[in-house]
Amino acid sequence: MKLIDGKATAAAIKEEIAAEVERIVARGGRRPHLAAVLVGHDGGSETYVRGKVKACGECGFRSTLIRYEDDVTEEELLGCVARLNADPEVDGFIVQLPLPPHIDEQKIIEAIDYRKDVDGFHPVNVGRMAIGLPCFISATPRGILELLRRYGVETGGKKCVVLGRSNIVGKPMAQLMMQKQYGDATVTVCHSHTRGLAEECRTADILIAAIGRPAFVGPEMVKEGAVVIDVGTTRVPDATKKSGFRLQGDVDFEAVAPRCSMITPVPGGVGPMTICMLMLNTLAAARHDCYA
Amino acid sequence: MKLIDGKATAAAIKEEIAAEVERIVARGGRRPHLAAVLVGHDGGSETYVRGKVKACGECGFRSTLIRYEDDVTEEELLGCVARLNADPEVDGFIVQLPLPPHIDEQKIIEAIDYRKDVDGFHPVNVGRMAIGLPCFISATPRGILELLRRYGVETGGKKCVVLGRSNIVGKPMAQLMMQKQYGDATVTVCHSHTRGLAEECRTADILIAAIGRPAFVGPEMVKEGAVVIDVGTTRVPDATKKSGFRLQGDVDFEAVAPRCSMITPVPGGVGPMTICMLMLNTLAAARHDCYA
Repeated sequence: MKLIDGKATAAAIKEEIAAEVERIVARGGRRPHLAAVLVGHDGGSETYVRGKVKACGECGFRSTLIRYEDDVTEEELLGCVARLNADPEVDGFIVQLPLPPHIDEQKIIEAIDYRKDVDGFHPVNVGRMAIGLPCFISATPRGILELLRRYGVETGGKKCVVLGRSNIVGKPMAQLMMQKQYGDATVTVCHSHTRGLAEECRTADILIAAIGRPAFVGPEMVKEGAVVIDVGTTRVPDATKKSGFRLQGDVDFEAVAPRCSMITPVPGGVGPMTICMLMLNTLAAARHDCYA
Repeated sequence: MKLIDGKATAAAIKEEIAAEVERIVARGGRRPHLAAVLVGHDGGSETYVRGKVKACGECGFRSTLIRYEDDVTEEELLGCVARLNADPEVDGFIVQLPLPPHIDEQKIIEAIDYRKDVDGFHPVNVGRMAIGLPCFISATPRGILELLRRYGVETGGKKCVVLGRSNIVGKPMAQLMMQKQYGDATVTVCHSHTRGLAEECRTADILIAAIGRPAFVGPEMVKEGAVVIDVGTTRVPDATKKSGFRLQGDVDFEAVAPRCSMITPVPGGVGPMTICMLMLNTLAAARHDCYA
């Protein structure tokens, strides 16, 4: 069993990005610039956004953090999005989700200029990804593709089972894995209403778990020699930790790992790749790789 | 074995649409108006567009056919799209594909206002469909969903195998079948690079064949009691026909039908539903069901 080290891979990619940025700057170009909009003081969101700003620094990007209190109006937030859309100095930006319930998240997402939508959540990017056109691919699925590629996991013609059908991970992951120019695999999407779930999962050469149910995937669901990618990051209480909790994946790691040819740990697997892919998307935005 | 009669179903739906149009007109409303742009004189395209114009008549719609010769420039065609986008009397329109090689099809598709894109090919509609938001769903997958629904085929929790991963049928079909508000099924997408294809297909409660290979699906690929939907329509030479050809589906109907609980014939199955769904999308456009 080989551990897929997302932390080390992300570090290596950030170094590659930083080197590319220095080449751009040396040629007289501008540093890529990511803006992040954070509403309120949710602990998880604070942590994510802090991580994104830090990663910008590591990659040699310029970053701007724009904060609003919980009581910001939808109108104010739409005004902020419009300003960022129009700002030629901003290559890409994100509005950290979730937003307070009085704000229509989908409305905010669709207000973002898709050419700056480095999260890849705008329908134009979702649609272009489905059709196989250049676009911003959302960070988690893109990070998983990159891990598979860098660890030499053959995907073409392989059986891939995706557990979960969220808009953020399950659905785009399935779409990428089935497309000729990405995974070229035979893909099955399983979910809460799937019958014979364990049996379906056992057919997988590559199993991608993204259902948000801690330690849901046991050894009876994994074929001997499979590659297992664990997207789950649920906080579960843990008295031995200073924080009082630990991150638990969707996979029962201890029980499943011995059956796998490769497996991602939680933490240190998919998680670190996600922010790293946001950096790659920002670099692509700055270079106009996807859109003129 | 029960035959799924697409022709009769399409006729019934067109009658329902016509009745709704008369209600709209009786209330002082305007008839839905579909415009179709046809470039050149390709036999297949002529037939399809003629069928669409005829269906408009049956539904009580107004229709406009705009013709260009093969040597139309991309600029002229974009100008036509811009005029149709701006015309308040046109509810929806289509540009019949394929277009001559000197015209960038994707550029034309993306120039269409997604609120009038009743073919559902614009990235915004593709993306919104993937996310599960109101949108124009492309006609063939929507027609298949409607056939399943009207024939009382339970899809929730069932195993569905989609053969083929085209942008027009395979991919959107898979997305619809996996989503909770549509099929809610466990979906596998198989294609040319799938290993153990027959075995995968045999797991299907619902098998949807859309690979464009005549009579490819034989009885060894079909589970006893399965529902089989045949999207293929390949013209194969047939000396007994006046036209010199007949339409052959992807399924070896004679050999497969005895194993099925239900099956669509070719012709008369999925085909007639496709134009009919374009009519439903046009009605939805006129009523602003998807977009304000």
